[in-house]
Amino acid sequence: MNTSTFNHASSSHHSPRPEGLCVASFGGGHGLFQTLRAVRLLDPASITAIVTVADDGGSSGRIRRELGQIPPGDLRMALAALAPQDEEGKIWEEVLQHRYGGYGALAGHAVGNLLIAGLYDVLQSEVQALDAVARMIRAQGRVLPLCEQPLDIEADVAGLGADPRIMRQVRGQVAVATTVGQVRRVRLIPESPQPCGEAIEALQKADLVTLGPGSWFSSVLPHLLVPGIVDTLNSISAMRVVVLNLDAEPGETAGFTAERHLHILTQHASDFRADAVLVDALALPSEADRVHLERAAANLGARISFHDLREADSAGVYTSRHDPDKLAAALKKVYYGN
Amino acid sequence: MNTSTFNHASSSHHSPRPEGLCVASFGGGHGLFQTLRAVRLLDPASITAIVTVADDGGSSGRIRRELGQIPPGDLRMALAALAPQDEEGKIWEEVLQHRYGGYGALAGHAVGNLLIAGLYDVLQSEVQALDAVARMIRAQGRVLPLCEQPLDIEADVAGLGADPRIMRQVRGQVAVATTVGQVRRVRLIPESPQPCGEAIEALQKADLVTLGPGSWFSSVLPHLLVPGIVDTLNSISAMRVVVLNLDAEPGETAGFTAERHLHILTQHASDFRADAVLVDALALPSEADRVHLERAAANLGARISFHDLREADSAGVYTSRHDPDKLAAALKKVYYGN
Repeated sequence: MNTSTFNHASSSHHSPRPEGLCVASFGGGHGLFQTLRAVRLLDPASITAIVTVADDGGSSGRIRRELGQIPPGDLRMALAALAPQDEEGKIWEEVLQHRYGGYGALAGHAVGNLLIAGLYDVLQSEVQALDAVARMIRAQGRVLPLCEQPLDIEADVAGLGADPRIMRQVRGQVAVATTVGQVRRVRLIPESPQPCGEAIEALQKADLVTLGPGSWFSSVLPHLLVPGIVDTLNSISAMRVVVLNLDAEPGETAGFTAERHLHILTQHASDFRADAVLVDALALPSEADRVHLERAAANLGARISFHDLREADSAGVYTSRHDPDKLAAALKKVYYGN
Repeated sequence: MNTSTFNHASSSHHSPRPEGLCVASFGGGHGLFQTLRAVRLLDPASITAIVTVADDGGSSGRIRRELGQIPPGDLRMALAALAPQDEEGKIWEEVLQHRYGGYGALAGHAVGNLLIAGLYDVLQSEVQALDAVARMIRAQGRVLPLCEQPLDIEADVAGLGADPRIMRQVRGQVAVATTVGQVRRVRLIPESPQPCGEAIEALQKADLVTLGPGSWFSSVLPHLLVPGIVDTLNSISAMRVVVLNLDAEPGETAGFTAERHLHILTQHASDFRADAVLVDALALPSEADRVHLERAAANLGARISFHDLREADSAGVYTSRHDPDKLAAALKKVYYGN
């Protein structure tokens, strides 16, 4: 497939910077992991991952409830993505991600989550704790929380009762992600959290900012709801790239079109502007869908850029994940315009 | 007090080695921690801590039961003792030792214990896991387990029933340490565990080997019960120094004299030979006690050496711990004979 058919290269035509780019990547979970793996391939001068802190499930949720801390899971996964790929780095990546076995109180906890939690207990600073783990594993970048306090997401959900017009509030990442109703709108609790100061600084120095892919309501959208983030994004000269999900996710975005994903961003953060939207060429919509998608992107001030982005497994079967090499090539193309 | 009154300097009169000593220290718990802090002050070429793995209480016991691993607590404490005393090293020392708060499943677990457990799960090697933590904190020495399998101690205890002649078996470190009876004899379960190969190698290269202080039955004696350890100690030219406890411990050695501590070693490992026994000068026994103590030491082939060893707190009040500076001075005096 000719992946350049619908490739509208950015008009920015940024010249290569010999010292490398400063890249900031917003996200969470597996989506951010794959993005960071891609960004590393750009050989950037710096990488800063800015990570959502609204998870309330699994090991993260247990730590959050037990110790009153930021849920560490997405932060830990981003650190693992930045581990050097030499022998020692790969071991630390595996150890951070490893989950204890057995049938006891530790079962299912990720080792890295407990390490971050322990460092936070001692240092009383999420940023210092994450920097310590980064130094420990010689991470090729920095991982920062979106906010230095745990967040919750609360959604207005339709279709949960007999009357489809009645909206109900569903609170918590797990509950929102698994609701059988239709998520209409999402809020943060608290509504106006303070963004992490170091994250704002990283944005101000960035040449390239990525948003997504990831669970749209819980890993992508929350970044745009934190006061100051959108203003900062609109005040900097960095290229802002939205990386759309390859597929709609069962649960919170089941059945959502690519266009609807963009619409959600505009609906929740009307001031948010982007420069480019990366879309999987394999999920090539119909001509009508394409027009709708371009219109939704234009609402953000962005152009659509189609690329071959999907990872194939060793048997050549496509997975549901972005391929770091392909995503890196697409980011290069969009950034440098060639 | 003149602490040299009873100071019989070793006859070895070892010359200073410009490249520094290779030191191996047997023990566990707080006793080993203080010893390692002292050994560091000798500016040695290498330090190897060889640590008991028979603990079954607290965080270690939970990990041992839940994950089927070696109890990591004494190993973690030895690593903390070897953390560099710069800013970053002190943070890692504190983090390794830190115990999670809260009221949940993590409460009371030491962060370092869970890190060692996670590394072991991934690497499937206790030595590799400990080496990884040592590299991570830039430890000024190596920490090895006495054996690469968990051990249990079982004691014959008198005085638990109506008939004081009846001996009962008490199993497990916590149970032995807290028995209200009198511990007569201790065994390892399994009876003949394999010593850690790297520990034997470290002994073979050592110039100075220390044993104790520590919980006598659970942190000191077990080393001499593992097949091959005593033989190795008797085959090497290193100076072997027993550091006696400052006080009898409530529980397992309540009321035991210094002489009795040495007698226990001879009774359980009749072939064990040492060169010097360091005794706290403040616990100066009567002339009769001194004669008994010297006789017990002579049974080991060792001379008694009295020193001021006890730590004083900031208010000048003596604690129950060895002072690293004082212990280092005593070890120097005994090793170099001046």
